Amino acid sequence: MLALAATEAGEFRQTVSLQTVDIPTDPPDFLLVQVAWSDLNPVDLQKLHSRTTDFPFVSGFSGSGIVQETSDEVAFPVGASVCFLLDPTKKSGSYAQYCRVDRRAAALVPPQITLKEAASIPLAGCTAYESLRKLGLLTESTTSVQTLLIVGGAGGVGSWATRIARAWHPNLEIICTSDTSRDWCLANGASRCIPHVLQELPGGPHGSVDAILCLTEPTPTLMNAMSEVIRPYGSICLVVAGPSIRSLNLDFVFFKSVTVYTETVFSCFRTQFSHSQPSKMMAQILNWMSTGRICAPLSPCLDEIDADWTKATVPNGILERLHSGHVQGKLVMRIGDSSVAGNVHDTDFVDAR
Amino acid sequence: MLALAATEAGEFRQTVSLQTVDIPTDPPDFLLVQVAWSDLNPVDLQKLHSRTTDFPFVSGFSGSGIVQETSDEVAFPVGASVCFLLDPTKKSGSYAQYCRVDRRAAALVPPQITLKEAASIPLAGCTAYESLRKLGLLTESTTSVQTLLIVGGAGGVGSWATRIARAWHPNLEIICTSDTSRDWCLANGASRCIPHVLQELPGGPHGSVDAILCLTEPTPTLMNAMSEVIRPYGSICLVVAGPSIRSLNLDFVFFKSVTVYTETVFSCFRTQFSHSQPSKMMAQILNWMSTGRICAPLSPCLDEIDADWTKATVPNGILERLHSGHVQGKLVMRIGDSSVAGNVHDTDFVDAR
Repeated sequence: MLALAATEAGEFRQTVSLQTVDIPTDPPDFLLVQVAWSDLNPVDLQKLHSRTTDFPFVSGFSGSGIVQETSDEVAFPVGASVCFLLDPTKKSGSYAQYCRVDRRAAALVPPQITLKEAASIPLAGCTAYESLRKLGLLTESTTSVQTLLIVGGAGGVGSWATRIARAWHPNLEIICTSDTSRDWCLANGASRCIPHVLQELPGGPHGSVDAILCLTEPTPTLMNAMSEVIRPYGSICLVVAGPSIRSLNLDFVFFKSVTVYTETVFSCFRTQFSHSQPSKMMAQILNWMSTGRICAPLSPCLDEIDADWTKATVPNGILERLHSGHVQGKLVMRIGDSSVAGNVHDTDFVDAR
Repeated sequence: MLALAATEAGEFRQTVSLQTVDIPTDPPDFLLVQVAWSDLNPVDLQKLHSRTTDFPFVSGFSGSGIVQETSDEVAFPVGASVCFLLDPTKKSGSYAQYCRVDRRAAALVPPQITLKEAASIPLAGCTAYESLRKLGLLTESTTSVQTLLIVGGAGGVGSWATRIARAWHPNLEIICTSDTSRDWCLANGASRCIPHVLQELPGGPHGSVDAILCLTEPTPTLMNAMSEVIRPYGSICLVVAGPSIRSLNLDFVFFKSVTVYTETVFSCFRTQFSHSQPSKMMAQILNWMSTGRICAPLSPCLDEIDADWTKATVPNGILERLHSGHVQGKLVMRIGDSSVAGNVHDTDFVDAR
């Protein structure tokens, strides 16, 4: 099959190209899915840098497509539309024509949801879902969280989190930080958009926000800023684990009795799905979409650049856009031709508010 | 009044002595309490080292006694027995004959509980209570926590936590670490007592304990050990904020989606009691004691050494015992004479299991 594969570790421009690789075979009892759309995440590029063996390596950790082979005819018959999350320890990712998919990390896509929309759910949507659940925001009941700060609100997870939190709590004050995407954040459901945490929000011992969803590297400067603005007994959820996670200063956080959640949706694979079921989270999000409660925050970037995966690595291609770090909304990439990938709905870019 | 006061920063043997100091006057609307018993905690000694101004300084952050003056006749009449927590930013502590007490950090002691028992509650009991609540263990309903590791299980907070957790969950596996107090931990309700985390418990990606209550400094070595043994989606509650809290490695914790709680009962003072009510926690614990559900884990050390505060600083006195770091159970110190401090009940050292 064709895949966007890396032949060595490094920067995608030098290492990634369209190559013919084997269709993954192991384990045989997994679903074989013909990929329609892959989603794209900053972590895809990070994986290219950190991997040292076992090439060619195909990046991409989630997507959507059509079931081609199955050992589970009832839940996932051949021909069914599914979205899926992939084990990040495998070398076969979703930047390829076929994936082997663990059914516990897959969900059926109902007919009213496009495969393009569905591809945006498994990694970014579920990360937003799990993070908000940890922060106590996935409940109808009265919550102590009245102000949520999303650091990096314009990206894929931030856009999903904004929409999900807004759908659950119409009166929640959602503050997004973004250098460049103010209009996107506000249109997406944010109450305000600020460039930086420290300059804009009052901090100190009493803090000013009840919960923080941190979607960028928790550098010492950022950690200090978050420690200042979080209220006592508040919560911070860390979603990015670059080098900073190895040396976090929780001094001020401690004296506020703050809770620090760490969140990676990939933990489900380490635990054999005993503590987290991405299939259930995906089904929940798909259900919200089917009933009109939430609309996928697909990136408007896709209007501007070629989303065809065969041109992903060209200058201003989709990987370049991802590399820039200034994406608005959730980027996905068309892998299959239109017979597999389906047509884009008119509703793809509808404002979710 | 007499107080065990420090005249300068430093080690207690050089700085603390029995001195005459003014009865605290501010703020005037607080309760004035004649102290019967002060509790003793490692943080008392740390305060002596870190304080740089405003001497004489009286350490001690909680205790019990008799109300002498009150602006709140209904809840706290003159003559009432109370236990109380003190604001750690003030220079007047509980190693003294009188304290000014915020009524929001005080609770009435019912007649069947001795003032000695009551003095063990406000700091150590409430810290244990809040920590266990954060870890999800203060609920009758089914909890996902089947194994609780208490690092430093023999000390005051650890002994309280063991008894409270055992009272709520008779079948919970409670593992305590202690170098020297194996028998105390087991008698106190622990399922097992181990000397160190890393050598004794299986770790790795799947971990082996559901929750950890860390009551010693989270050094890099200990943090690494806890990261190994905690199961994915598990919880760690940090209660000690020495230098290590400024540089915590959450790398492995991150990839397990672990939650890190930070707990200091003193946060209530920073927040004007808006998020935490020590008076309610104390009342809850006193109620459990009144109904026989829990018995205060008073230290058997008190049998061996002189608990009279006027001899607290002599060799092998109670401060020396506290300084050793190897206390079993909750240390308290008699301040008043027997007419104030009351008689010791025969039930003080009853096994709580």
